[in-house]
Amino acid sequence: MSDDATDTPDAETLADRVREGDLRFHELEAHADLDTAAEARRLLVEAQSGADLDAVGHYTFPDEDVVDSAIENFVGTTQIPLGVVGPVSVDGGAVSGEQYLPLATTEGALLASVNRGCSVLDRSGGAEARVTKSGMTRAPVFRVGGVAEAEALVGWVRDNEDALAEAAESTTSHGELLDVTPYVVGDSVFLRFRYDTKDAMGMNMATIATSEACDLIEAETDASLVAVSGNLCTDKKPAGINATEGRGRSVTADVTIPREVVEERLHTTPEAIAEINTRKNLVGSAKAASLGFNAHVANVVAAMFLACGQDAAQVVEGANAITTASVRDGDLYCSVSLASLEVGTVGGGTKLPTQSEALDVLGVRGGGDPAGSNADALAELIAVGALAGELNLLAALGSRHLSSAHAEHGR
Amino acid sequence: MSDDATDTPDAETLADRVREGDLRFHELEAHADLDTAAEARRLLVEAQSGADLDAVGHYTFPDEDVVDSAIENFVGTTQIPLGVVGPVSVDGGAVSGEQYLPLATTEGALLASVNRGCSVLDRSGGAEARVTKSGMTRAPVFRVGGVAEAEALVGWVRDNEDALAEAAESTTSHGELLDVTPYVVGDSVFLRFRYDTKDAMGMNMATIATSEACDLIEAETDASLVAVSGNLCTDKKPAGINATEGRGRSVTADVTIPREVVEERLHTTPEAIAEINTRKNLVGSAKAASLGFNAHVANVVAAMFLACGQDAAQVVEGANAITTASVRDGDLYCSVSLASLEVGTVGGGTKLPTQSEALDVLGVRGGGDPAGSNADALAELIAVGALAGELNLLAALGSRHLSSAHAEHGR
Amino acid sequence: MSDDATDTPDAETLADRVREGDLRFHELEAHADLDTAAEARRLLVEAQSGADLDAVGHYTFPDEDVVDSAIENFVGTTQIPLGVVGPVSVDGGAVSGEQYLPLATTEGALLASVNRGCSVLDRSGGAEARVTKSGMTRAPVFRVGGVAEAEALVGWVRDNEDALAEAAESTTSHGELLDVTPYVVGDSVFLRFRYDTKDAMGMNMATIATSEACDLIEAETDASLVAVSGNLCTDKKPAGINATEGRGRSVTADVTIPREVVEERLHTTPEAIAEINTRKNLVGSAKAASLGFNAHVANVVAAMFLACGQDAAQVVEGANAITTASVRDGDLYCSVSLASLEVGTVGGGTKLPTQSEALDVLGVRGGGDPAGSNADALAELIAVGALAGELNLLAALGSRHLSSAHAEHGR
Amino acid sequence: MSDDATDTPDAETLADRVREGDLRFHELEAHADLDTAAEARRLLVEAQSGADLDAVGHYTFPDEDVVDSAIENFVGTTQIPLGVVGPVSVDGGAVSGEQYLPLATTEGALLASVNRGCSVLDRSGGAEARVTKSGMTRAPVFRVGGVAEAEALVGWVRDNEDALAEAAESTTSHGELLDVTPYVVGDSVFLRFRYDTKDAMGMNMATIATSEACDLIEAETDASLVAVSGNLCTDKKPAGINATEGRGRSVTADVTIPREVVEERLHTTPEAIAEINTRKNLVGSAKAASLGFNAHVANVVAAMFLACGQDAAQVVEGANAITTASVRDGDLYCSVSLASLEVGTVGGGTKLPTQSEALDVLGVRGGGDPAGSNADALAELIAVGALAGELNLLAALGSRHLSSAHAEHGR
Repeated sequence: MSDDATDTPDAETLADRVREGDLRFHELEAHADLDTAAEARRLLVEAQSGADLDAVGHYTFPDEDVVDSAIENFVGTTQIPLGVVGPVSVDGGAVSGEQYLPLATTEGALLASVNRGCSVLDRSGGAEARVTKSGMTRAPVFRVGGVAEAEALVGWVRDNEDALAEAAESTTSHGELLDVTPYVVGDSVFLRFRYDTKDAMGMNMATIATSEACDLIEAETDASLVAVSGNLCTDKKPAGINATEGRGRSVTADVTIPREVVEERLHTTPEAIAEINTRKNLVGSAKAASLGFNAHVANVVAAMFLACGQDAAQVVEGANAITTASVRDGDLYCSVSLASLEVGTVGGGTKLPTQSEALDVLGVRGGGDPAGSNADALAELIAVGALAGELNLLAALGSRHLSSAHAEHGR
Repeated sequence: MSDDATDTPDAETLADRVREGDLRFHELEAHADLDTAAEARRLLVEAQSGADLDAVGHYTFPDEDVVDSAIENFVGTTQIPLGVVGPVSVDGGAVSGEQYLPLATTEGALLASVNRGCSVLDRSGGAEARVTKSGMTRAPVFRVGGVAEAEALVGWVRDNEDALAEAAESTTSHGELLDVTPYVVGDSVFLRFRYDTKDAMGMNMATIATSEACDLIEAETDASLVAVSGNLCTDKKPAGINATEGRGRSVTADVTIPREVVEERLHTTPEAIAEINTRKNLVGSAKAASLGFNAHVANVVAAMFLACGQDAAQVVEGANAITTASVRDGDLYCSVSLASLEVGTVGGGTKLPTQSEALDVLGVRGGGDPAGSNADALAELIAVGALAGELNLLAALGSRHLSSAHAEHGR
Repeated sequence: MSDDATDTPDAETLADRVREGDLRFHELEAHADLDTAAEARRLLVEAQSGADLDAVGHYTFPDEDVVDSAIENFVGTTQIPLGVVGPVSVDGGAVSGEQYLPLATTEGALLASVNRGCSVLDRSGGAEARVTKSGMTRAPVFRVGGVAEAEALVGWVRDNEDALAEAAESTTSHGELLDVTPYVVGDSVFLRFRYDTKDAMGMNMATIATSEACDLIEAETDASLVAVSGNLCTDKKPAGINATEGRGRSVTADVTIPREVVEERLHTTPEAIAEINTRKNLVGSAKAASLGFNAHVANVVAAMFLACGQDAAQVVEGANAITTASVRDGDLYCSVSLASLEVGTVGGGTKLPTQSEALDVLGVRGGGDPAGSNADALAELIAVGALAGELNLLAALGSRHLSSAHAEHGR
Repeated sequence: MSDDATDTPDAETLADRVREGDLRFHELEAHADLDTAAEARRLLVEAQSGADLDAVGHYTFPDEDVVDSAIENFVGTTQIPLGVVGPVSVDGGAVSGEQYLPLATTEGALLASVNRGCSVLDRSGGAEARVTKSGMTRAPVFRVGGVAEAEALVGWVRDNEDALAEAAESTTSHGELLDVTPYVVGDSVFLRFRYDTKDAMGMNMATIATSEACDLIEAETDASLVAVSGNLCTDKKPAGINATEGRGRSVTADVTIPREVVEERLHTTPEAIAEINTRKNLVGSAKAASLGFNAHVANVVAAMFLACGQDAAQVVEGANAITTASVRDGDLYCSVSLASLEVGTVGGGTKLPTQSEALDVLGVRGGGDPAGSNADALAELIAVGALAGELNLLAALGSRHLSSAHAEHGR
């Protein structure tokens, strides 16, 4: 790239030049290859902190471009233990068949738990799963003169949805504007743009498209853009709007487990699991003023997000899930509905070596056919994993419960 | 361990035995060493899915015990790009000085953003940080006969806090029961136990100690334990109780940035940043029925959690943060308060090779002196990173804002 | 009606017959006129409780039909003190001019507070007000077989909005179905029907119309209605969906108050009020996990609801309000946005004697021209009252604040 | 009072003097008796609005002092229809026996609904009720220099709880400070003071006591009071902190209804009611991001609040209620838990003529023996009324449900 780069100084030299103030810590890639720049940074950090960065430096990254698009100030990688559970039988809207599910985690017992849940799903004929709503959102906030101007802006948006769509979609070959919903608070007007972003998680696409639409709004109205995100999106924060209206994929997985499977494999009863779910996941979460009515859905979301190159900060929205359990003709019906699961199979971390391998395990790497179907499939598979995790944890509580009930009767 | 293990069959042989139903997928470590078992699983998954698991198999794990306590069905590792930002000057209650902060992420531009924020903090004399509340919680749910029995249980708990503490603390050499808060909903009674778990994140410690206390309650009262977690803890779900009352560490970082630094380095004004913060982080989040009044705190929490071996699913609670920005005598005061940051420097993922190196970079690996001070320091450093991230994002919006304001005046 | 009714027994006789088990307490109107039945009940209640019900029996109700549609087991009336504030100048979308506002309350100082606020609004040229969104909702919940059937129901609803509108609107001469939004949670599907109910608050209209639409759904799909309200409406419960998406009228009132008015009349500064609003109404409410970001909007909503015959239980949703205050070129901009104000000027309590007089004071009794404009006007006038109340309370805090600030500087 | 008052001008004269600018609208009581002042205001309002205020002027208020403490700008009263339900058998912690419950409402069918519920409670041996937590709160917000000062303030409060209690309690003969809980957000510190206010609802007592404590804090620390209410109280706004931690009384009423009573009187089954409660009150409210997990508790709270002189704006917190329903050995267990019911039997509106009569019906007017027991009893009676209302509404849905289920099986 630069002359320095062709010279390829060694890491010690680079580190010295940073110490001397000759180079800046974040500019090293302009003066050396990726590996040398990373090594130089490790030397500097080791010297300053006394840490030893050997393991961190032991990575597998053949492709500089991939790293460049994923991180700055690269020093190596963090290795998260990866395991698989299953295979589990899935009957989804976008994916069907026997599937291994990859999970990356540092929490012992998580995979064992999900694996047992998968085994119970399989014994019950597998899980069903469906994406029931879809759309990535971005909600800029505008400043207006007051409520009279706010009303005018809301009217203008209603009358100009086509023009807004044209502006927004001019920035993307795939994305499609689904709708724009206005919210007025005093002299702030928030417009929630919702897009079909196909197989991309879509935050970047939605941001760029919305920025273009904002330019049109500023040109045509008296409103001034304050921020392209006004927090009604809502990205990476717990929010009722996501839990209720959804963001990314709204996806449900469910199963009916025959009573004998509950009794023999889970050592409890449908009634016990339904009771625990009501007291803990419904009443307990209600009393906690929670937006997550489940046992540990975030565990599976986090582990599959990490394995599959999704955005770890969006585990926040992934936790907006409701688990239900009820007795049906003596059997157990159980479901998990994730309101706002933000997933993609193209772009972002999906291109990294280990992450793309995990997507291959699921058969969902890259763009789907039709477009969007791979991301739908990923959402459905995560929902199935979450269902397995919920089942096993509820059953573990239930079997304890049952044994204690037995003990009680034995007195 | 078993005879098979001493024979050490190769991975192909193991995989074949699984295919033949002779061994079970999750039992391979009983028949081979860690690496061979993982290789056998990769073979099986590759065959079933058509994926190629080379990169995943390229890991650095010297110690089987470490892996055993972190995951089951191990196949390799997921590599997350790791970078560092800083150094940034920190004046905390448990840590002071110049610090590099390690972040693992796949989101391009995040480290650049946080790094610019750190540079502004440094120009302003560094950030202050304090843990203002601390305690890990576990809240079992009990079934009682009705509200009369509920009232009796609440009374019993109030009268027997010492006995509960004795029972709970009998299971731990470090943990200390701080208090027990009862909540009654019909015939369900929830007891929120809060512990000082020192340098451990403390979920396991709290669960084991609480289980022991539950045994005492069941022995001495008419109440029956339904679940050791009744979701009022609240673990890995967004919940008002955590956002308000805190869980893990409640920690704040703040800074006052001189006007000239705002103008010259951030290309905006204190007034613009305060306005954006109010409209976006306060009013926008209010309208979204959110529990997170910030711009992107979860990004920094997630990236530092991954780098430092924290539980990725607890990013959920890490997002319960409020960012404030106001003008003080012409300068900019900015703060980030994370209500429920659950961190530890011993146990869990902190023992893994790359993760422990990152903790060494921060100087907080292992137990602190006094006990708890390393986890406090980690919390303060994450808060400082979050503050840097908020500042830079608000400033980026503000400089756009300012330039558009300039353009407007120039018309 | 019955023979007894023509005989018109006296109250003592009626009471005796109830004591003897010959008549039932709730059936007295079938055997006597309204006043005698009420007197008989008072005798019975007085005898049982020892209370004296003189004042309760001193009411003004000429019309039995009106009472019949408002209450059962009538014994008299509760008298709530009624006052008026203003006149205040209003520039609304549906109402303009100088207006007295009637408030019924038992909280001393409330009217004085709102009255001072109105006086400041007037000094500032009056308040602006606009309804920015409108629609009454009812959300039945259906049981389906599982997520596959849920997906089918969502599709059916999308494809049959016209048929649903036809069914719903067949039950009403005024109401209009605006849209239907589906929400899936496991084997429960919620459909939120939203109606334009013109000048009626609209709960009854929406319920009847939705019931008819539910019959169509049950006839045409496999779904079974569980309850015509599935709590996603949401009626008379605090709920994010109302605070964010609105219910009834979403209405904002705002004003810009010149600095000299703030200083001379409110004895504080725009800066002090903006600071108090941020710390208390925004940050404080954020920390409380609140859906109400205001000081005491519910006070004005409750008092105007009582005066004007609105449903007192819907004060709950009326409290979903955000107050903003900011400094604009040295002056104070202040706004109140009520997300879910459920009001009507026909039906329900609006027909009662004292209540209809209060609506006459506002000039909004009965159906508006165009239809809906009277209810819009009522919403705007309540918003103006709420704005006056917020202003005065913030100013009272601010003047204390200012005097303490002065004291501080004087040290 | 003044010379004018002894002259007692007539209403027309007073009205003319206001029109001429000689007197101010809110000062009339200084120049005439209550009735004449009210009449003069009615004349002015009638002239300005064209309304006729006859019914409003027809009130029963013997005592000027009572009106003075309840309202300003008095013009008359609003009459709300009042009825009674019951008698219902109550087994509470503070009240037992057969009770009529007074409700004031304009919503037709409400009393009939609650009355049927009461009848079912009676058939089941009556309802149990208990106050499980109690305390009125006030939470001032202070400005501090930053988080270091915030930490210092939190420490000071912890070390000086006795001094704070002494200051607070110096202002009241009855109130008792129970605890103070600090919350830190950047440079704002909120202190939630919680009091035992005995039979008073307690907002005024808590405000005055807290103000005194704030003076001590400002004198002894660097903190500056911004507002005596920082919205973490939380008064008259929906808030997680109240729904979870309680405010005023946390009270539960429950009952076990024999299967035959459910079937014969409610025409449904325990199973149907439990299912409806789960889908509507738990899952539906969860999906709505609600803080109220009930059907229509606010209806009963509002109607009993109005009848009994409680603060109508606090219906907001009264709606923070969770209803549960489950099958127990074939029978139906049902409960309602109101987290934050703010009631009092002394002060405020309880002194008004019609309202004090209603309190007499309940036997809870004035101070209880022991102190606090009357307000506890009022809370328990409202909870029983709410339980009756929930039962009847769930049963009405269930019987429809059952008949439709029957129809289904009949096909």
